[in-house]
Amino acid sequence: MKISNRLLNILGDGSDGWDIFRKAADMVRDGIDVTQLTIGEHDIRTDQRILDAMHQATLEGHTGYAAIPGIFELRQAVAERVQAQTGEKTTYANVLITPGGQSALFAAHIAACNPGDRAMYIDPYYATYPGTIRGASAVPVPVKARAEAGFQPDAADLAAQAKNATSLLINSPNNPTGVVYSRDTLEGIATLCQTHDLWLISDEVYDTQIWQGRHITPRSLEGMRERTLVVGSMSKSHAMTGSRIGWLIGPEEVVAHLMNLSTHTTYGVAGFVQQAALSALKLGIGFEQEIAQPFRRRREIAIRCIEQSNVVGMIPPQGAMYMMLDIRNTGMSGDEFANALLEKHHIAVMPGESFGDAAAGHLRVALTVDDQRLEQALKTLVRFAEENTR
Amino acid sequence: MKISNRLLNILGDGSDGWDIFRKAADMVRDGIDVTQLTIGEHDIRTDQRILDAMHQATLEGHTGYAAIPGIFELRQAVAERVQAQTGEKTTYANVLITPGGQSALFAAHIAACNPGDRAMYIDPYYATYPGTIRGASAVPVPVKARAEAGFQPDAADLAAQAKNATSLLINSPNNPTGVVYSRDTLEGIATLCQTHDLWLISDEVYDTQIWQGRHITPRSLEGMRERTLVVGSMSKSHAMTGSRIGWLIGPEEVVAHLMNLSTHTTYGVAGFVQQAALSALKLGIGFEQEIAQPFRRRREIAIRCIEQSNVVGMIPPQGAMYMMLDIRNTGMSGDEFANALLEKHHIAVMPGESFGDAAAGHLRVALTVDDQRLEQALKTLVRFAEENTR
Repeated sequence: MKISNRLLNILGDGSDGWDIFRKAADMVRDGIDVTQLTIGEHDIRTDQRILDAMHQATLEGHTGYAAIPGIFELRQAVAERVQAQTGEKTTYANVLITPGGQSALFAAHIAACNPGDRAMYIDPYYATYPGTIRGASAVPVPVKARAEAGFQPDAADLAAQAKNATSLLINSPNNPTGVVYSRDTLEGIATLCQTHDLWLISDEVYDTQIWQGRHITPRSLEGMRERTLVVGSMSKSHAMTGSRIGWLIGPEEVVAHLMNLSTHTTYGVAGFVQQAALSALKLGIGFEQEIAQPFRRRREIAIRCIEQSNVVGMIPPQGAMYMMLDIRNTGMSGDEFANALLEKHHIAVMPGESFGDAAAGHLRVALTVDDQRLEQALKTLVRFAEENTR
Repeated sequence: MKISNRLLNILGDGSDGWDIFRKAADMVRDGIDVTQLTIGEHDIRTDQRILDAMHQATLEGHTGYAAIPGIFELRQAVAERVQAQTGEKTTYANVLITPGGQSALFAAHIAACNPGDRAMYIDPYYATYPGTIRGASAVPVPVKARAEAGFQPDAADLAAQAKNATSLLINSPNNPTGVVYSRDTLEGIATLCQTHDLWLISDEVYDTQIWQGRHITPRSLEGMRERTLVVGSMSKSHAMTGSRIGWLIGPEEVVAHLMNLSTHTTYGVAGFVQQAALSALKLGIGFEQEIAQPFRRRREIAIRCIEQSNVVGMIPPQGAMYMMLDIRNTGMSGDEFANALLEKHHIAVMPGESFGDAAAGHLRVALTVDDQRLEQALKTLVRFAEENTR
């Protein structure tokens, strides 16, 4: 039987970029002590108070179908948080609750694009972006953000691809680069979207992890409110990766129509998980800062380690839980380096190539192990780079 | 900004068929005591043992990302259950865990159809079917199963639409009709699929609710294993509607590719929900029978009520938690009848029209309130039909 082309082609060239991650996981299964700096996941569990609130919700009877676009209280709480963070008026009717940020990313592309439409995204990119666009039967159009420009996308590069495009997907704070887009960059993007009548899909799941500068949501820029779909999530901000809960913020009309997509793709999100998310939001901004704190601290440790090297370069991350290392001086590709480092030193980092051509010759290090282990791993990585420079 | 046509058109004519359900919910919110016989949801909560197992799983640390196609233990447990129920060899590699049966239905259509492909389904149908097909950018092609044939689809009617079609979606035990497809019907469908090279998508979420005859999965029929995608769920069998967990069973290759779809649409299912489902399956077949028992009992009560009427007809349900009433003798449409009954007697039932043209002049009654209340509501319904026959 013939599987549909769109499913067969979802990965494009056939790799999802997670080979190293799986190789490391296999080694762990074989009893090898691997330092895992691959995946963007906290080294803590979800907070006990949130888990207890979820259990309490089940005891109170939240075990049946929940409202498909999300329960009112959670939509309202998300709207209030967005409004408080961004100053932009937001009500429950602007909020669609989804089973995770990835689901909101997919929904945003379904809302923006018809099959065959050109959907732009910035390279380096989070690993699922091109597949999400292909999964939505649209055509992924990468636009490089150059290492030399600190991975801020360039207005001229964007404009060169914007003709006949339907949407542009951006991500600030950025995974994998740790870059926070400047006001200049965002205003250039806003102008571009208005000039070329593009939807802007803004993935802001790292909005609580800002180390330098300020997070600006493009939805708050002039003329952007009606053409911006913001993707949010509890995963990174509240250490709830495994709960699969996020949201899309957009114009009321889009949210109303996307409710129909939810009815036909997920039938909503578990009510008890929504109650857990509601309780987590009620823990307030102090809790979000607590969750972000270890990454702030480890970022400083990592910068100190890398600064000492003449071979390994970096752009100090301005946000998110990653650091991008430049290992082009070694003469190795990111793939080669990451594989050799894993085999020789049992340290797993993601090759830049997993995140696109623009990140070739780089490594993404997730700051997701304890401080001491991170420091040791980075020192080993630097030594390995220096010993293996061609 | 222009929302994509495919999102705008997901509902086709603009109604999702749930107007009466929402009207009843509004009345409840206004303090009116409505007897809700609309939605297919148990009048019990999820079992405490399952909820406790979920809480325990969170305490044991299942709060991070879980394996995208499902945790091995759950895939394995679902495979064993399917094999035990159907005799058909099934391993974990045939099982994709999804956030609910609806998600598996969507995934199945993505796997089978490219955009623009013709996807057949049987009318009367579960309310989301045509929208699921449209959501997957395919073209819904209904084939009527006639009330006069006991709502078993006819081979000639199917063959008339099968040319140039890509897939056929069936549902037995059937929502809304309560019909269980006979071996003859299923063998006719199997022949049709092989003759016209169709994927068969078999929604079997009511497979534990059989009151007459026997459930046969078409995957077990000769030549069908490689072209059948089975949709399953914990919702109806284990009273876990609100947990949003289900699965797709199919050829290994399809499951492997659908894992890529999951990566790009949902990023998997919460690990603690998967642990809850695993614990629920371990409660065994006795537990499934316990969950089904009230519907068996209420079906008998309902049959006794309707048998006494000269106006209201029925086909006694062979499976599932519904009964289809024939009110064509009244001269009213299902919509008219359901609206009038809700307004006058505060009893909410679904008009047949919500489930397609073939169910016009019918009502779907969900057997989802306690026995006494059901009996009283049906007696009132019968009296109302008799008083209002034109």
